[in-house]
Amino acid sequence: MGDGAKLSVGFLGLGIMGEAMARNLLKSGLFASVTVWNRTLSKCQALVGEGAKSAETPAAVVGSCDVTFAMLADPDAALAAVFGDNGVLAGITPGKGYVDMSTVDEATSTRIGEAVTAKGGKFVEGPVSGSKKPAIDGQLIIMGAGDKELYDLVQPAFDVMGKKSFYLGSTGAAARMKLVVNMVMGAMMGAFCEGMALADKAGLEQSALLEILGLGAMANPMFALKGPAIMARNYPPAFPLKHQQKDLRLALALGDSLGQPLPVAAAANEVYKAARGAGKGDEDFAAVYEATVNKK
Amino acid sequence: MGDGAKLSVGFLGLGIMGEAMARNLLKSGLFASVTVWNRTLSKCQALVGEGAKSAETPAAVVGSCDVTFAMLADPDAALAAVFGDNGVLAGITPGKGYVDMSTVDEATSTRIGEAVTAKGGKFVEGPVSGSKKPAIDGQLIIMGAGDKELYDLVQPAFDVMGKKSFYLGSTGAAARMKLVVNMVMGAMMGAFCEGMALADKAGLEQSALLEILGLGAMANPMFALKGPAIMARNYPPAFPLKHQQKDLRLALALGDSLGQPLPVAAAANEVYKAARGAGKGDEDFAAVYEATVNKK
Amino acid sequence: MGDGAKLSVGFLGLGIMGEAMARNLLKSGLFASVTVWNRTLSKCQALVGEGAKSAETPAAVVGSCDVTFAMLADPDAALAAVFGDNGVLAGITPGKGYVDMSTVDEATSTRIGEAVTAKGGKFVEGPVSGSKKPAIDGQLIIMGAGDKELYDLVQPAFDVMGKKSFYLGSTGAAARMKLVVNMVMGAMMGAFCEGMALADKAGLEQSALLEILGLGAMANPMFALKGPAIMARNYPPAFPLKHQQKDLRLALALGDSLGQPLPVAAAANEVYKAARGAGKGDEDFAAVYEATVNKK
Amino acid sequence: MGDGAKLSVGFLGLGIMGEAMARNLLKSGLFASVTVWNRTLSKCQALVGEGAKSAETPAAVVGSCDVTFAMLADPDAALAAVFGDNGVLAGITPGKGYVDMSTVDEATSTRIGEAVTAKGGKFVEGPVSGSKKPAIDGQLIIMGAGDKELYDLVQPAFDVMGKKSFYLGSTGAAARMKLVVNMVMGAMMGAFCEGMALADKAGLEQSALLEILGLGAMANPMFALKGPAIMARNYPPAFPLKHQQKDLRLALALGDSLGQPLPVAAAANEVYKAARGAGKGDEDFAAVYEATVNKK
Repeated sequence: MGDGAKLSVGFLGLGIMGEAMARNLLKSGLFASVTVWNRTLSKCQALVGEGAKSAETPAAVVGSCDVTFAMLADPDAALAAVFGDNGVLAGITPGKGYVDMSTVDEATSTRIGEAVTAKGGKFVEGPVSGSKKPAIDGQLIIMGAGDKELYDLVQPAFDVMGKKSFYLGSTGAAARMKLVVNMVMGAMMGAFCEGMALADKAGLEQSALLEILGLGAMANPMFALKGPAIMARNYPPAFPLKHQQKDLRLALALGDSLGQPLPVAAAANEVYKAARGAGKGDEDFAAVYEATVNKK
Repeated sequence: MGDGAKLSVGFLGLGIMGEAMARNLLKSGLFASVTVWNRTLSKCQALVGEGAKSAETPAAVVGSCDVTFAMLADPDAALAAVFGDNGVLAGITPGKGYVDMSTVDEATSTRIGEAVTAKGGKFVEGPVSGSKKPAIDGQLIIMGAGDKELYDLVQPAFDVMGKKSFYLGSTGAAARMKLVVNMVMGAMMGAFCEGMALADKAGLEQSALLEILGLGAMANPMFALKGPAIMARNYPPAFPLKHQQKDLRLALALGDSLGQPLPVAAAANEVYKAARGAGKGDEDFAAVYEATVNKK
Repeated sequence: MGDGAKLSVGFLGLGIMGEAMARNLLKSGLFASVTVWNRTLSKCQALVGEGAKSAETPAAVVGSCDVTFAMLADPDAALAAVFGDNGVLAGITPGKGYVDMSTVDEATSTRIGEAVTAKGGKFVEGPVSGSKKPAIDGQLIIMGAGDKELYDLVQPAFDVMGKKSFYLGSTGAAARMKLVVNMVMGAMMGAFCEGMALADKAGLEQSALLEILGLGAMANPMFALKGPAIMARNYPPAFPLKHQQKDLRLALALGDSLGQPLPVAAAANEVYKAARGAGKGDEDFAAVYEATVNKK
Repeated sequence: MGDGAKLSVGFLGLGIMGEAMARNLLKSGLFASVTVWNRTLSKCQALVGEGAKSAETPAAVVGSCDVTFAMLADPDAALAAVFGDNGVLAGITPGKGYVDMSTVDEATSTRIGEAVTAKGGKFVEGPVSGSKKPAIDGQLIIMGAGDKELYDLVQPAFDVMGKKSFYLGSTGAAARMKLVVNMVMGAMMGAFCEGMALADKAGLEQSALLEILGLGAMANPMFALKGPAIMARNYPPAFPLKHQQKDLRLALALGDSLGQPLPVAAAANEVYKAARGAGKGDEDFAAVYEATVNKK
């Protein structure tokens, strides 16, 4: 991958997010080639029809590309793609880059990074903030950490997939940042639901509270989006409650290991646990409202 | 105050907020006259120089106007202006309107409303959200409650002073709404400070967290404004911490009276109490950060 | 009430506790006379049959006795007995003593004390710990505060009614001590219920947990008494949950006024509020277990 | 190990607790022999002088005894004794029993149990409640789980070492019970410290609070023992704060996995975290008082 020459890039994982991200790389015209792989190979056809190459295994993608990106469903899928038969490790040779944009915990990310590095490869973790629409629009927020040289090299790819990327430090830093962000989100939603519940009990229109909040210093897209869901008490899952609660748990564990008390997040976590225990785990995390209101 | 005729209006309390609000009423040209009063009468001179009248007592203002607005410092000042010698009550006659926009608790507001009503007057409570700049710009958010006829009558005045006003129900509803809003604010700030503290302990740049939060679904003016203050650990008071803690306490008491558990707000309240106990009561409420970080 | 002479004592309020306490005073033989009064006068007959005198009003009791004790149902009853027509104040003359053993808040106690003192009387507040059986057995714990001279004078009476009495300082101190004690009790019960709930969820016998707790450093009569009630999920009221929750609220308010954070008690309070909101207010405070276990 | 014949027993780990427990087994005269081992072998001499045998490795002890007990410092020591060179596993043959009385987490206990069972042995976990003095006096409380036949077989040994033992179910149940007990203890101590702090702030003598608590329904040895330490603000470690906090964390994690909210314990845990973060981790867990009182 010499100066001036275009990079050849790979992409593992063509779910809702991954397919959109790979398509943006392809459409940019910045790369010599885009080679895709998915566990269900038929998912590759649309992109191949648009000009991508495909390969039958992660090892084959990595072997034929300078840098390979991955967007896999969860830590297990991320680990399988790397350590499984014909996985990423089988294709890594010195100098190649691997950029895992899946949302995984710090331990998983560290394990993958160490294995890639041990074979002479370079590793960047790059979890994102944002879901389907920002992925399509190339408007994700990318939290990057790991090998700084590789991070700089793939900056043009990050610019295509996201509206902003951050280099946060050595491997693990991006996973930690995502936990911090999601902890704030979980506690903030918990506070919001208490406000909605109190308004209702106090004889105030929840819609008025939403409007007032929307006009002041606290105005934010999340309240605007989730407020109506709470009023309708209907929570189609964008970010499942059980995942929000897991992130609160992991953030609290991080605080524990660092001696940082987090009483507000801890109190919120208990409400999410109550909601999960009441069967709301697969609904959107705004369903924590159901554990906030008093059952008769 | 017949159809078509312009109202004559009064204004009690020319503090930072009140003077700006009275000036906006004056400049609008919508009213037959604007008569002002302040406990320190010399504060009236600037507005008189701009065309306002002044009077020496609240009773004199109320006696000479169709509707009188008030923006007083606290419940004690609000009660004194109404029940004191030559106070509002001494000027109220049947049909006159009194609109108290001070931030007072529900009990105070109810007491004032009942006294005004007992003399044949009409009463609206109208606490606002927003501080100095929105007051100057006529961009306050006005939470109104009480006499609906009077509320409708003064709508043009609210439109001049605010960007949006809400009619929330009978007297007390606006005081309750303000508590709900401030409870969400207090808990949200508590959650934010925990995120800032955890980021720092976890070796992450707080500035990166602020940027990431500013680009996502939680982006809001409060984080953008208070984040840098927290990073500088310098908290010039816009909304003093002791007032935020008082509002949390009152909101929790409201929840208590209604049987609504509020565990996230309760946990946040304890952190504010710790901050207040550590001498941060007169600093901005973002100083709750100081009680969030671990002292060595 | 000179040296050596026996005191004549009065007793206001012959409820379950009061009747037993007055009977113990009577049976002791230490007093020149015991004069009783109750709002429903017929309640006096049993004690009169045992040798007591009775009077038709609090004023009459106070007028005819050196020292009058009171054990009334709540702050309203305590205030009515003092400030009502023919109340305690009407009978107080310089030198007479009034000892209110009712459980009232500090403000109520202070108000009564000031009124008694203003008429030249002496005042002691003396709330008790313990319920029906200790009252009958003369085994109450008496928290005393106020006039030290009167406290010393009535020590023999306290020794008859209680197993131990404490002088805690000026009026209000005993009310505050009772709040502290009940706050510890409420939070301790909250912790206990969480242990019982977790044991059950974790496949452990609650009876085994009770036995183990009963053999170790945490062994206490409350766990031993309330544990079986929790296992049976049947909570006949000894100390109603709504009163426990009120005491938690008042203790938190006391901590608030003193700048003392109380996060464990605050978290417990929210669970009691949930229980109260779910209709358990009139059951025993151990019914907080019902808000601790997860509803399906 | 036939009917009527005396068992030969082994004992691994002669720390403060273990030496006392082994001595009680020896002194009982109930066993054919008592063979001891310690990582530092010289620790065996005292017991050998009193009639015990010693062996140079865990494997040798297990190989020469019907049942071997262990009381090791922590999970790492417990695992090393079993899985290390010449460890317990090397001596286990079908029918032999292994009883681990160390305090370990459920995962560790399960792992040991499975390994012992895989070699045909029988396994009981038997963590204890109580420290040095109950160990010497044979007054421990023993929480047993695992193989019921082995549990019944060693009942006489448990009776020698403890005042009471409980069979709680399959392997892991005793580890869970110990977590539940310690969670209640941690939260109860947190509540107690809040009461002590509030008393002090409210101008009440902490010694009076201790006396009053000691006379009522909450009276328990822990308050009586730790109260004076709190008053002296001196916390020589009996149960180090960092271990109490670890147990709260693990209990909360257990609750999390079971969907059981534990808001009171969670609030307490945050205070312990603050204390640990302030450098109190190695002091007694009553030092949580230092994080409860307000720092100036």
